[in-house]
Amino acid sequence: MNHNAEVICVGSELLLGQILNTNAQFLATELAQLGIPHYLQTVVGDNEARIHQVLAQATQRTGVLIFTGGLGPTADDLTHESLASFFGVPMTEQPGLWEDLVAKLTVRGRPPTPTQRKQCAIPQGATVLPNPWGTAVGILWEAQPGLHILTFPGVPREMHAMWRETAVPYLQGLGWGAQVFASETLRFWGISEAALAEKVAPLLQGGNPTVAPYAKQGEVHLRVTAAAPNVAMAQALMDPVIREIQQIAGADYFGKNETTLAAVVGELLTSHGQTLALAETCTGGLVGQLITSVPGSSRYFLGGVLAYDNRIKATFLGVDPHLLNEVGAVSPEVALQMAQGVRDQFHSDWGLALTGISGPGGGTAAKPVGLVYMALVGPKGGITQERRFWPNHGREFIRWLTAHSALDWLRRQW
Amino acid sequence: MNHNAEVICVGSELLLGQILNTNAQFLATELAQLGIPHYLQTVVGDNEARIHQVLAQATQRTGVLIFTGGLGPTADDLTHESLASFFGVPMTEQPGLWEDLVAKLTVRGRPPTPTQRKQCAIPQGATVLPNPWGTAVGILWEAQPGLHILTFPGVPREMHAMWRETAVPYLQGLGWGAQVFASETLRFWGISEAALAEKVAPLLQGGNPTVAPYAKQGEVHLRVTAAAPNVAMAQALMDPVIREIQQIAGADYFGKNETTLAAVVGELLTSHGQTLALAETCTGGLVGQLITSVPGSSRYFLGGVLAYDNRIKATFLGVDPHLLNEVGAVSPEVALQMAQGVRDQFHSDWGLALTGISGPGGGTAAKPVGLVYMALVGPKGGITQERRFWPNHGREFIRWLTAHSALDWLRRQW
Repeated sequence: MNHNAEVICVGSELLLGQILNTNAQFLATELAQLGIPHYLQTVVGDNEARIHQVLAQATQRTGVLIFTGGLGPTADDLTHESLASFFGVPMTEQPGLWEDLVAKLTVRGRPPTPTQRKQCAIPQGATVLPNPWGTAVGILWEAQPGLHILTFPGVPREMHAMWRETAVPYLQGLGWGAQVFASETLRFWGISEAALAEKVAPLLQGGNPTVAPYAKQGEVHLRVTAAAPNVAMAQALMDPVIREIQQIAGADYFGKNETTLAAVVGELLTSHGQTLALAETCTGGLVGQLITSVPGSSRYFLGGVLAYDNRIKATFLGVDPHLLNEVGAVSPEVALQMAQGVRDQFHSDWGLALTGISGPGGGTAAKPVGLVYMALVGPKGGITQERRFWPNHGREFIRWLTAHSALDWLRRQW
Repeated sequence: MNHNAEVICVGSELLLGQILNTNAQFLATELAQLGIPHYLQTVVGDNEARIHQVLAQATQRTGVLIFTGGLGPTADDLTHESLASFFGVPMTEQPGLWEDLVAKLTVRGRPPTPTQRKQCAIPQGATVLPNPWGTAVGILWEAQPGLHILTFPGVPREMHAMWRETAVPYLQGLGWGAQVFASETLRFWGISEAALAEKVAPLLQGGNPTVAPYAKQGEVHLRVTAAAPNVAMAQALMDPVIREIQQIAGADYFGKNETTLAAVVGELLTSHGQTLALAETCTGGLVGQLITSVPGSSRYFLGGVLAYDNRIKATFLGVDPHLLNEVGAVSPEVALQMAQGVRDQFHSDWGLALTGISGPGGGTAAKPVGLVYMALVGPKGGITQERRFWPNHGREFIRWLTAHSALDWLRRQW
């Protein structure tokens, strides 16, 4: 018996790109949490011959086949029909299903149509997997010894309910899913995926827990996953590895799971009883948006000035107009005066300022697109930093990297 | 020769449900637009034996194999290695790739690491598919007569650029995609998907072009798609339908394809030679960020004040402190004073102000989470508007809807 599951999503709309396959991700997550190995996913159209092709291979290598989609009332919904013909059994209408379907439609004020009767038949020998939300039922079926087939409608809400209410207990009753998998994502800023992977190289070889690196929008993640009979034991396997990674990575590690750089900055400001004000130019409000995406940020965030126009830098932030003329708006000197200015004006503990060239226009040989100056004035004085982002990254990603680099820089000040 | 394409996404993170497979949808849509048949998608882990298993079957039935993922620098990135071993050719380092990689990393101030050299080798006989954004190159390879293999990194941004810049011309050069599919997305704000679908109901029945509605983050899209021997003919089929939709939808239509509300506002300000300044509270900089995401926005956007703290509303924007005490910060009166204040201070033609409660905390019976006041002061005077968003939408979506509703409101003023 093959102790692994395979997911087969049926639907031409998936192959035309009309919908995003969130069902595959849902099932993948659920199977991982149940500890059921899952090596392959297939998407196939509403076509009996091609469903047979997929079945011919999948039935050779797997113990649980999970289908989504193709259970609707229309002629191109073929999942159950294809399964019946593949295994050489007839479709048989199940007692009570039609009455149940009529009752469900009546509640919604929709008269049942004859074509919907098709949904009441399933392959002979299979058991109905009831659908609490809709009219399309699924099946639970040991089609061959050691080969279990489960089918679900493609509608995510219905599929999720059926999975949790019926399919999971069914699989557990078969003795599957005795292990649980737990995982934590460790987040890093200021180090490349390759450099971090090298630093923690021996840990990447581990079997349980496993450690896997991912790069994501300038951030790097390490995902630590452990398998154990229960969550507490899985956590106990992960904890020492997580501590070791945190120690190796040092300041480049900033938080776990849903923790953002803005949340870390917020915690540091809160715990020190300090406040922040911003002076943004090239990021146009993105840093403020990130900071205020944290609920309760009004405790430490006083506000800011979007000093897009140079006159605003002078009138609102007290930047010396002569300095602006001499060294230009994108300079460490102007960044520092902006940070000082917004700190003075807002009476905040910290003033953070950003000035740079996001592109696509506005770059010169001396000051290319991607050049950014950050300045920070705090209780101990002022500092500046230059960053150069790759012009090809494009305006939006340069702004994203600029804003997150600034938050990363700020969090390292305590 | 098999005239169809198959998509193979490589990545254990997909099988663990850690990421959603948006690449499969992107490629599905693109293949549909090129008119290239596409019957099967597979997701397989970072495992050479299983990649071989998938290849053994896929190479029998398809003419173009499109891989995503598994091109990174770490040891578990195995796509190119697995292709080379399957077809029995060695991996060979390509001249110039290492220099290019070093240059890319140097610009970002990140020293290249020895493991990254791995990314410079591809299966012998394949051609490099350059990556304008990142360090992972793909390949174009006729691995067997009539069997073309294309590989892309899993990072969507990189994959999209490589697909459009290199892969599409390559496929078209092979004579694939003889029928072209062209499509345009019409964008609407201020009308629900159901209401718009009802208004244009007869057009939704059309065969060529087809018209399909989508709802997306508060916006509604109608996607018009036509098939024809060339783009000009497809466009000619679409044009009258697009004009009809624009006429039916009236002011709720705001633009096509990549046009954003912020871009429309920018065009209107530019064509009238006017300028804008912002006073944001609950959105924390999001409106500024949207406006400045448009290249060249410095022509009409002077900047703004993030008046998160009430004292800032008074000192920077001249809001009457007694009024703040009397009616509270979330009120039409305060919104209007904020808009007037920022317009006066910045000497702009328009002052736009937003004040509201994004939640999750801060709501009361009288002023619940989701309540927002917008105010606009322009050449003809000041106006305010109340909006109530559903608290269950959550902080981030309420902020998103608030910011876009404000831009939508502004664009309707001319």
